[in-house]
Amino acid sequence: MQRTKIKDLLTGAEAGNQVLLKGWVRTKRGNKFVNFIAVNDGSTIHNLQVVAEADKFSEETLKDVTTGAAVVVTGELVASQGKGQAFEIQAANIEVVGKADPETYPLQKKAHSLEYLREIAHLRFRTNTFGAVFRVRNTLAFAVHKFFNERGFVYMHTPIITASDAEGAGETFQVTNFDLDNMPRTEDGKINFAEDFFGKATNLTVSGQLEGELAAMAFSDIYTFGPTFRAENSNTARHLAEFWMIEPEMAFHDLKMNADLAEAFIKYIIRYALENNRDDIEFLGQRLVEEDKAKPQNERQEMTLIEKLELVVNNDFERVTYTEAIEILLNSSHYKKKKFQYDVSWGIDLQSEHERYLVEKHFKKPVIVTDYPKDIKAFYMRLNDDGKTVAAMDILAPGIGEIVGGSQREERLDLLVERMKAVGIHEEDLWWYLDTRRFGGCPHAGFGLGFERMVQFVTGMGNIRDVIPFPRTPKNAEF
Amino acid sequence: MQRTKIKDLLTGAEAGNQVLLKGWVRTKRGNKFVNFIAVNDGSTIHNLQVVAEADKFSEETLKDVTTGAAVVVTGELVASQGKGQAFEIQAANIEVVGKADPETYPLQKKAHSLEYLREIAHLRFRTNTFGAVFRVRNTLAFAVHKFFNERGFVYMHTPIITASDAEGAGETFQVTNFDLDNMPRTEDGKINFAEDFFGKATNLTVSGQLEGELAAMAFSDIYTFGPTFRAENSNTARHLAEFWMIEPEMAFHDLKMNADLAEAFIKYIIRYALENNRDDIEFLGQRLVEEDKAKPQNERQEMTLIEKLELVVNNDFERVTYTEAIEILLNSSHYKKKKFQYDVSWGIDLQSEHERYLVEKHFKKPVIVTDYPKDIKAFYMRLNDDGKTVAAMDILAPGIGEIVGGSQREERLDLLVERMKAVGIHEEDLWWYLDTRRFGGCPHAGFGLGFERMVQFVTGMGNIRDVIPFPRTPKNAEF
Repeated sequence: MQRTKIKDLLTGAEAGNQVLLKGWVRTKRGNKFVNFIAVNDGSTIHNLQVVAEADKFSEETLKDVTTGAAVVVTGELVASQGKGQAFEIQAANIEVVGKADPETYPLQKKAHSLEYLREIAHLRFRTNTFGAVFRVRNTLAFAVHKFFNERGFVYMHTPIITASDAEGAGETFQVTNFDLDNMPRTEDGKINFAEDFFGKATNLTVSGQLEGELAAMAFSDIYTFGPTFRAENSNTARHLAEFWMIEPEMAFHDLKMNADLAEAFIKYIIRYALENNRDDIEFLGQRLVEEDKAKPQNERQEMTLIEKLELVVNNDFERVTYTEAIEILLNSSHYKKKKFQYDVSWGIDLQSEHERYLVEKHFKKPVIVTDYPKDIKAFYMRLNDDGKTVAAMDILAPGIGEIVGGSQREERLDLLVERMKAVGIHEEDLWWYLDTRRFGGCPHAGFGLGFERMVQFVTGMGNIRDVIPFPRTPKNAEF
Repeated sequence: MQRTKIKDLLTGAEAGNQVLLKGWVRTKRGNKFVNFIAVNDGSTIHNLQVVAEADKFSEETLKDVTTGAAVVVTGELVASQGKGQAFEIQAANIEVVGKADPETYPLQKKAHSLEYLREIAHLRFRTNTFGAVFRVRNTLAFAVHKFFNERGFVYMHTPIITASDAEGAGETFQVTNFDLDNMPRTEDGKINFAEDFFGKATNLTVSGQLEGELAAMAFSDIYTFGPTFRAENSNTARHLAEFWMIEPEMAFHDLKMNADLAEAFIKYIIRYALENNRDDIEFLGQRLVEEDKAKPQNERQEMTLIEKLELVVNNDFERVTYTEAIEILLNSSHYKKKKFQYDVSWGIDLQSEHERYLVEKHFKKPVIVTDYPKDIKAFYMRLNDDGKTVAAMDILAPGIGEIVGGSQREERLDLLVERMKAVGIHEEDLWWYLDTRRFGGCPHAGFGLGFERMVQFVTGMGNIRDVIPFPRTPKNAEF
């Protein structure tokens, strides 16, 4: 007999079928006549109940059927008496293929804190919460590829190890093959990177954008989806040292087309998750409702998770320039009552509290802010005709803040070189990047989306460490 | 007017339509009355011919229409007089948005060597060959996700930075945030990794398998698709320091199910490429035919690229045990005539020449070799009942050699620990891996496929550096 997964049993199977179930025991309850065993196989948030009549099975077998044990069950699928489930299995045979000693198994029936589960990240996939989170993550990742594939984008694997710090975006991790205790030195005593594996100092990439631009100048539309790294010593619920980014880059696109694509993209992948993982998202939404019960009324969520996601999917994003956003903030009663911690004036980098005000209080939906002052943005962003702003865009989402950052790129060689000089980037380090402006360059644009931020948004998880399988953070690279 | 890509123009458009074309000039030829400009936009191997009557355009505009220039063209799509093309554009307007000075543009009309193009990897996407290669790579990557998605596998992003050398598979790259010129030391003079970013020595992953196994013990079926690294100083056409791997892992699978899945997977993604990128593959096949013309008759390919791929897709893979394979080699006239460089006996690691003999001479199709001697395989492979072989499998493909390596995993805690001891891996370093055997373990299996090897196989490219956008190899991390 072929194994059927629970997801398929619950949607496609018929009562009366003989089935083969394989999975892990979540709970066992019952009395001396009958045992009810909830089994999960990871294919869905739902367990399948196995009904085991005590007189059909040895005491020894049933003793080993404990939370966490791996079991193989055959039996008849029957309509369930219990509520909340259409089917259950009347067990004919139960084999425990992997025991889980109740004395030592770290995941018992009771609810565990997210902090505790982070310590046992190798087992947390077996909980309802993390099962749901990583199924949603999987669905979102597939939707990313599907979206770009349908639009003729070419997926590019840009390099992870690189000799250039693409954006000067922050501290990078060094990559070396040296014996650290015995590094070769040049005559004047400096570390001789010419003798390192790559013949020069290398680090982990902070972004695939610059390489992505090279490919866009041949394929028109490309995207990356790969790991990126920041050696920032930020021990917060929002930062990871290793995270996944999606970076599309489009030739012949201006800022408006860039914003249109980003909005369509975000809506597409959220809609895809709502359609394919509604059960998981409902479960995660219920989790938030439970969490809220411990909070004072005025701190509770105004919308359920599903409502929040549907709001995003069904409404146009608001679009304002940075200059308009500053005006809105300056005119707000919030500002006048001095409720912002950081001051507001044209030229500042918007703080989290400012972004949240715009999104959550003023517009009450996602906002695309464009045309930032050039001095607070990266060197490759296209200078606007006003000479003081660049064609940048950030997309701000409720509860998350910045979820997308992008821009039209500076395609004019002279202006780009000037900007590089101003920020201290050497032309010779980026000769290949400049070549795309020398030869067949064109107006182009792109953006980056931090994948974990998006998974947080869709799952409602408050800590970014809970949406990546094995988080890398300061002093932590376990598993 | 909306831009239409050439791929869509060639399949979906109708003569008489006004169209907007954006792309890069490949060639320009003509006379004083009319210019024929071949434009490519990366969406397909095919160019679209733009017909520009000399009297409609200024000399200055036409002068800038040179190989490599970015152009925006509007005009009427008309049935083409030329052969090999259904349509061409009768240009009404041509704008050169990015020039490419013919004196300095490194990619001229003439054919360039692959070696030369590797030096200008930032521009090689603009050639027919690399356009085709990276479109095929994109299609294969999408097919990977599609295959596993259809089967309910969960895509896992396993960590890139890790403190464990999963398989002892080879030299790893170190990752550090230290100031290399001033590393903190412990009292006894050793480097104090407790003060490094992660609080311990870390390196780049060589495989996501061990972490993948953890997730399979919750989701049943998972796969990884991410970058992996080897700091091997191998300057060959087969090795990269950074490459992408696909590693599925399935709970409740034995070796036979593992081999079945791997075979179905390989056929699926190749078939998908044949269906979606036939033009590109035909072009690449023609490239090989041209290449062969410079070779003596007996060194030429027996089959075209398409024929080779269809052979793989349409035939069952051969399955033999390692022991049977050794017998075949020992009984071969090749062996008896002492044509193998390396000797053959039970216990040896099969050399490339042995694998090629089995695949290309003996079976003439892909071969799955199973049940290797335990001493030449990794510690986590399941010991067979004979006590001397393990439930391993390698899939060997014509012209490439090993394309998949996999095994059923040792799920029995005592045997696994014994094996780890034998090869010198400390239990405490892999406590989390052993936990999956302590708690709800089950028979499970998985395999790894080197993505670049697969891209080589489907594109026929001989050097692995030509199938990844920006190859990382000894002394080379350019771009």
